[in-house]
Amino acid sequence: MTISAADVKALRDRTGAAMMDCKAALAESEGDVDRAIEILRVKGQASAAKREGRGTSEGVIASYVHANDKVGAMVEVQCETDFVARNEDFNAFAYEVALHVAATAPRYVSAEEIPEEEREAEKRVFEEKAREDGKPDDVVEKIVAGRLAKWAKEVALLDQPHVNAEKHDSKTIEELRQELAAKTGENVRVARFAYFRVGEGD
Amino acid sequence: MTISAADVKALRDRTGAAMMDCKAALAESEGDVDRAIEILRVKGQASAAKREGRGTSEGVIASYVHANDKVGAMVEVQCETDFVARNEDFNAFAYEVALHVAATAPRYVSAEEIPEEEREAEKRVFEEKAREDGKPDDVVEKIVAGRLAKWAKEVALLDQPHVNAEKHDSKTIEELRQELAAKTGENVRVARFAYFRVGEGD
Repeated sequence: MTISAADVKALRDRTGAAMMDCKAALAESEGDVDRAIEILRVKGQASAAKREGRGTSEGVIASYVHANDKVGAMVEVQCETDFVARNEDFNAFAYEVALHVAATAPRYVSAEEIPEEEREAEKRVFEEKAREDGKPDDVVEKIVAGRLAKWAKEVALLDQPHVNAEKHDSKTIEELRQELAAKTGENVRVARFAYFRVGEGD
Repeated sequence: MTISAADVKALRDRTGAAMMDCKAALAESEGDVDRAIEILRVKGQASAAKREGRGTSEGVIASYVHANDKVGAMVEVQCETDFVARNEDFNAFAYEVALHVAATAPRYVSAEEIPEEEREAEKRVFEEKAREDGKPDDVVEKIVAGRLAKWAKEVALLDQPHVNAEKHDSKTIEELRQELAAKTGENVRVARFAYFRVGEGD
């Protein structure tokens, strides 16, 4: 069977996958669009898993200082090649992450970076509070787990929905990162950030 | 005697002191320009000493990312009032410090911030090297002291001559800071900085 250019474009618009991949998926599914989407999704997850392990030695530094000059942020976003580091979407992402950091002042890149003692200290506070409210043990456990998860999102950059929810469809920084990785075909890492607010320096 | 506006302006151009201070100094020195400069200097040192102790809760965040997007810096420069924080010279200084940090990658704001263990470790390396060169003890001591002072300047921001030597007459960041403090009449502090280079993040 022949696959029309219009079909390929329609599939591309729906999935964001590369033109060649869309064409191959439609050929494999014999023109069945839903099946082609499934093929692309499986393939996409496989390549995402492969990407995540790859080294990132290139990238950019981006900064954002709020209009009042009282708050600023700087980020390092890494990728695999200098080619992608010059890519417009990649640079837009780095800028949007810097802007987001300036707005929300996260403390860690990911929840895994939260030191164990800090997590334990937070847990104890939540536990005491739940017990003071007179909750039974099993309920306390559930409440604490929920509060800890919520707290981790507050301090971990990747888990936060981008502050400009309208522009980014309420997606988290991690979701935007994954999309960019799929689009560029490279592993993308938010390596670190700095957040400064006037008066908080020593 | 009467002090002409031209004399006041000439003294101001030479010293950078405020118009009113120049006028008062010329009146006190009865028109003797050299004596007026001395009066201003003594007065300037007295007010500088007073300024240094004053609290700085206002200021700005400034950032600079090198044109290749591979290197960036962010600084917090503090002053006493929001009025000075909006001052053009103050903001220019903050920007010039960020640019300088991006160019030289200092590790501490001032030499006093260098941890004692790090200084000791550096000292041992210099000592061993001087002994290997077969220098006698008293010479080793002198060489080590000289190398340590040189090294401290390499890692401490305030001790470094601004990277744009032509624009800043080879003045150090500390000298530029003192000038700005005298000009604005407020204590000025470089509170902290961050330096990012692509690939150096975890």
